[in-house]
Amino acid sequence: MSNGTLILMRHGESEWNASNQFTGWVDVALTEKGTAEAVRAGELLVEHDLLPDVLYTSLLRRAIATAQIALDKADRHWIPVVRDWRLNERHYGALQGLNKADTLEKYGNEQFMLWRRSYDTPPPAIDADAEYSQSHDPRYADLDEVPLTECLKDVVERLIPYFTETIAADLRAGKTVLVAAHGNSLRALVKHLDGISDADIAGLNIPTGNPLRYDLDDDLKPLNPGGTYLDPEAAAAGAAAVAAQGQKK
Amino acid sequence: MSNGTLILMRHGESEWNASNQFTGWVDVALTEKGTAEAVRAGELLVEHDLLPDVLYTSLLRRAIATAQIALDKADRHWIPVVRDWRLNERHYGALQGLNKADTLEKYGNEQFMLWRRSYDTPPPAIDADAEYSQSHDPRYADLDEVPLTECLKDVVERLIPYFTETIAADLRAGKTVLVAAHGNSLRALVKHLDGISDADIAGLNIPTGNPLRYDLDDDLKPLNPGGTYLDPEAAAAGAAAVAAQGQKK
Repeated sequence: MSNGTLILMRHGESEWNASNQFTGWVDVALTEKGTAEAVRAGELLVEHDLLPDVLYTSLLRRAIATAQIALDKADRHWIPVVRDWRLNERHYGALQGLNKADTLEKYGNEQFMLWRRSYDTPPPAIDADAEYSQSHDPRYADLDEVPLTECLKDVVERLIPYFTETIAADLRAGKTVLVAAHGNSLRALVKHLDGISDADIAGLNIPTGNPLRYDLDDDLKPLNPGGTYLDPEAAAAGAAAVAAQGQKK
Repeated sequence: MSNGTLILMRHGESEWNASNQFTGWVDVALTEKGTAEAVRAGELLVEHDLLPDVLYTSLLRRAIATAQIALDKADRHWIPVVRDWRLNERHYGALQGLNKADTLEKYGNEQFMLWRRSYDTPPPAIDADAEYSQSHDPRYADLDEVPLTECLKDVVERLIPYFTETIAADLRAGKTVLVAAHGNSLRALVKHLDGISDADIAGLNIPTGNPLRYDLDDDLKPLNPGGTYLDPEAAAAGAAAVAAQGQKK
């Protein structure tokens, strides 16, 4: 027997995707291109007759807006929504705000790729009082401790319990669940769903604004391992573009 | 002792406000002017340091979008949101979709004002299969009965129990609660809060996109009867414009 359907959606291009800056928990807006990607994502949901019953998002406007634009396009803007910090992008520590190409130039490719893709090496911690720190942001006032940096393992540790305890309940109830989130929080989720090793997850990139569908069995294991992109051609091109980041200024 | 703060916000101008059509439960979008009104509402929240902790909206995109735009402007786009059909506009029955000036001309002023402002006379029921009926809309699938028309009294009867049971809990917890809704659902709420009679409520109009603040005592009675518009001058002009509807085509 199959359970509900899970749709993962990475936000459309943000201002700092466009300017090639590390973003993390900094709350930047979508670009016009990002807005168009969100509209296209909504059209894809309609074309595939994949209408979400409930929405989960991070607390960041690029994910919130992408979901709202896509759902409005699909005439599902009225579904219940849950927003949780556990779906946030990985906190990029002291790299937040830095240009990726400058960082690559300054620290070299090995260190750069370690920060971007190693499973358990976080970037240097941000100073709690720095401009791009979130330590004094009211939306995180309830957290015991606001992160100062995170590696992908940290994201897995905050996100997967939330998935298995909260989001999973809606899936077990047979619902179609849309998760609108970020490159690295979705990588953490895909790692869990597909059982990808700590080493192999480094090679996985998730394109923006292209819904990725998982049909799940009783144990919430994928019936379609790796998931199914609603626009497979755009997904291949998009993943290659993500992998190439750092090479442009 | 005072309880939480309640902020009522009518959506900005919608496409059918602009074309002077009865809207009710028909789910039309904001106009550019309506979007600008929503931005201004967000600026007013910031200027008055009135930052909502939780948002309640109807299931209609003009209220959902107004709230999201205003909250984004106020950097509160991440607060929890609850959407409920009980906050919907009054169902305008068979009038939904009709031009207000045409309707005034066809039925005369007395009948027109009776449908618009009488407390307990609903417009004629819409046919469940009509173009502008919501009887087959999936967002209302859980309702025992989807309305075919409503008078203001019907709105009071569906909305006030929801207010006193659900929204009130957040107010009693001391939260600042934003309710983004519609001309008539907000009239129903103001009638309840201010203890306005069935007759006198006919004279009350609520302008678009101008947050109305109520500070509430222990019994959730207003400490500032009538509430306080964040932009009092615009409120006076806006209420006059609502009252004059039907006079333009």
